[in-house]
Amino acid sequence: MQSRQMKFGVILDGVGGPSWAWRREHIEPTASTDINAYIAEAQSAEAAKIDFVFIADTLSITPKSSPHFLNRLEPMTLLGAIAAHTSRIGMVGTLSTSFTEPFTAARQLASLDRISKGRAGWNIVTSAIESAAHNHSQDALPPIDDRYRRALEHVTVVRALWDSWEDDAFVPDKVSGRFFDQSKLHALKHKGEFFRVDGPLNIARSPQGHPVLFQAGASDGGRDLAAKTGDAIFGVGRTLEDAKEYYDDIKRRAKAFGRAAEEIVFMPGVDAIVAETQEEAERKYEEACAYVSYEESLSWMSFFFSYHDFSKYDPDELFPDVGDVGQNSYRSVTNYIKGVASREKLTLRQLARRFAIPRTDFIGGAEQVADACERWFKAGAVDGFMLSASVGRLQDFYDLVVPILQKRGLFKKDYEADTFRGHLGLPPVPNRYTVAREGGRGRD
Amino acid sequence: MQSRQMKFGVILDGVGGPSWAWRREHIEPTASTDINAYIAEAQSAEAAKIDFVFIADTLSITPKSSPHFLNRLEPMTLLGAIAAHTSRIGMVGTLSTSFTEPFTAARQLASLDRISKGRAGWNIVTSAIESAAHNHSQDALPPIDDRYRRALEHVTVVRALWDSWEDDAFVPDKVSGRFFDQSKLHALKHKGEFFRVDGPLNIARSPQGHPVLFQAGASDGGRDLAAKTGDAIFGVGRTLEDAKEYYDDIKRRAKAFGRAAEEIVFMPGVDAIVAETQEEAERKYEEACAYVSYEESLSWMSFFFSYHDFSKYDPDELFPDVGDVGQNSYRSVTNYIKGVASREKLTLRQLARRFAIPRTDFIGGAEQVADACERWFKAGAVDGFMLSASVGRLQDFYDLVVPILQKRGLFKKDYEADTFRGHLGLPPVPNRYTVAREGGRGRD
Ligand SMILES: Cc1cc2nc3c(=O)[nH]c(=O)nc-3n(C[C@H](O)[C@H](O)[C@H](O)COP(=O)(O)O)c2cc1C
Ligand SMILES: Cc1cc2nc3c(=O)[nH]c(=O)nc-3n(C[C@H](O)[C@H](O)[C@H](O)COP(=O)(O)O)c2cc1C
Repeated sequence: MQSRQMKFGVILDGVGGPSWAWRREHIEPTASTDINAYIAEAQSAEAAKIDFVFIADTLSITPKSSPHFLNRLEPMTLLGAIAAHTSRIGMVGTLSTSFTEPFTAARQLASLDRISKGRAGWNIVTSAIESAAHNHSQDALPPIDDRYRRALEHVTVVRALWDSWEDDAFVPDKVSGRFFDQSKLHALKHKGEFFRVDGPLNIARSPQGHPVLFQAGASDGGRDLAAKTGDAIFGVGRTLEDAKEYYDDIKRRAKAFGRAAEEIVFMPGVDAIVAETQEEAERKYEEACAYVSYEESLSWMSFFFSYHDFSKYDPDELFPDVGDVGQNSYRSVTNYIKGVASREKLTLRQLARRFAIPRTDFIGGAEQVADACERWFKAGAVDGFMLSASVGRLQDFYDLVVPILQKRGLFKKDYEADTFRGHLGLPPVPNRYTVAREGGRGRD
Repeated sequence: MQSRQMKFGVILDGVGGPSWAWRREHIEPTASTDINAYIAEAQSAEAAKIDFVFIADTLSITPKSSPHFLNRLEPMTLLGAIAAHTSRIGMVGTLSTSFTEPFTAARQLASLDRISKGRAGWNIVTSAIESAAHNHSQDALPPIDDRYRRALEHVTVVRALWDSWEDDAFVPDKVSGRFFDQSKLHALKHKGEFFRVDGPLNIARSPQGHPVLFQAGASDGGRDLAAKTGDAIFGVGRTLEDAKEYYDDIKRRAKAFGRAAEEIVFMPGVDAIVAETQEEAERKYEEACAYVSYEESLSWMSFFFSYHDFSKYDPDELFPDVGDVGQNSYRSVTNYIKGVASREKLTLRQLARRFAIPRTDFIGGAEQVADACERWFKAGAVDGFMLSASVGRLQDFYDLVVPILQKRGLFKKDYEADTFRGHLGLPPVPNRYTVAREGGRGRD
């Protein structure tokens, strides 16, 4: 039997997330809305046997937003197109539980799972920027605890809708005119705090049963949501120690909810900068730093604080006391920033720079970066990584690091499973009604 | 200069809309969720120079629903995939104004327009089945007048969002770091009866500016909505006289709202049954009739009455007085049915059969069907037709009728425009803010 292997996802984000990323030499300024470019990126990732592509999302902009946020394709339509031009790679799209109806989300994801033949995933987010509420007929972003309570109910309904049809419900017989077995169609009749959804869903159970559920929020509420109902968590973990703490915590929480540790996959986001040699990688890093003015780094950081205006503070004073600011936004991220600031006594300028272009273990020559991946993986701090390329290039990682990890037996040489769930080593999700009929207990 | 030509759209509906359609010999029972089949259908339509494919939709099911309704792909994800495998044909997706947020609809449609490079359209529906409300956290379907009021506000907001960015707003300059011209980005700050939407939209103005707007509701409220804000209306018109009345009415309403008659296109739905000869077409018609039991025809008709139970009435008595039933559902359709029943003194059985498989001008040999198309078109009753194939086959129409119409100069031999709007001969929609700056008056 083969030993456990690490997983890789890649974030496809057009010109790149941070505000300066589009200025890099190789970037086409139209990349965030160029479907051909997205398809080519997904195909390159598939050629490298990457497990999945990942589409993050935001739901409001200001003139200060990053170029990629200002003008980007919408995740579900984008993934429909990518699904039709790839055949093995998984694909994760972001939909907010705060601004969608579960029936719509369940349908679009099940449809994507059908179109991709079992390769869909959902990045469950609660939205963290106040102005997103103002685009969706709400006067204020609900408090984070309410958002997570709604998220849990939302996901619970979506999962139940996905089980509306048992896998063998359709028995089309043209002669008799019987199309399906009525005992295998289940209405839901859900009435909860936030939603009423009678069901059933108007699409058959999808190839994976349930598309893969990602969760990225990392505060207490976010971790609980993931541990209770998620398959994978896309966390922040900038040092091996941070990642290890996160990994242990999330597996412990999952067990507390009656799940096995292997049923949830932890993959921190990593912005790798890799080159043939260490020197070359350092040169790339310095090059990138040159783009990032103080203003740019400040504006990127301020996004996570719901666009709080940091320009009013003295850059060379200690990171300011902003009080509650950030608590109802990307809480886990802003708490992390505040923590680093106070622990290391950094000025605003130092912190903004550090946050914008962190020095991580994943900057270096190919062997060095492969070593870092192996070290984190073997330390039991991660199940894999979510790669982004706001500084480096994903293709460099595919060309230089992937072959080394394959040679070491740490990453697959080819896809081994038929579904995205299979790529991640996650167990199948049997239909709850089928399980109940057979006397078992399904996951809900 | 070339004379005016007729337009054709085709409804892609997998196994077919009516409850019996899936039993036809050539139908694969999985067709409604088979992406390869959909892509092949769209490509065949494109090869025949059809102007657009059309995806209808419903948002709730019961065990009595038609197979295609029970298990179908969701329109936006489906069209994302179709867009990526076609290059000229337009594509219209259905989204309900009653159960979506304008911000989401605006984004998904603009994204689809970008992915398809200017070929997207929106079938604006208000949803007409009571149970759809129960899948979207509402206890009752709002009254039809409220739904249309919400629809008008919804569409107005969507159109304004599509103008958030002027066409030349992006001026990326890597050296200076300037990405866009801030004077060409416009927030909306909409606060209305149903929605608050601050904007701006997070995607550039799409290739068409505004994707093509279809409307299918045909009561007074529906016609006004179309005349005020639509580009095309997909109506019911089973006889030349009905179609002519509809056509004249809709063009008159459009003019009353200050628009030119050419700015709105009327295309009734037509279920053509065409063959090499008249006899062969009649044989096909009879074959189809054989599938349609009384129960099947009743169940199909009952859908339009929000699943009213007609089985309790005597089939051989005159069509029953159902009172208000149908008024808050597909009002225009149910009024039409009631009208025919009382005018022609039909029994329930006769009416259900007539509604299920109507005898129209479009059943016959190729020349005969081409003649009918020409007659309706030249009488000024239609701008074109929306073809469906719940009895016949679309491919027969492409192979047999299209070449005749091309020879007669009534239908184009190849695509002549780059966008869907262009295919329909509709004028471009300039950005309202650009127009205002230049002293003009935009359409809102
Ligand atoms: C790594 C990471 C990625 C996230 N990605 C998104 C995203 O793509 N879209 C979004 O609206 N929110 C995103 N979020 C926000 C979360 O959904 C959540 O609203 C926010 O982080 C606050 O919760 P927390 O304090 O539990 O992290 C992300 C959060 C994290 C930590
Ligand atoms: C030809 C036609 C096609 C329609 N297509 C749809 C559809 O695909 N999905 C939907 O929810 N409603 C559809 N509708 C319903 C309308 O949006 C509207 O809710 C209903 O017809 C009641 O309005 P009316 O009386 O003005 O026609 C359609 C209606 C007509 C007449």
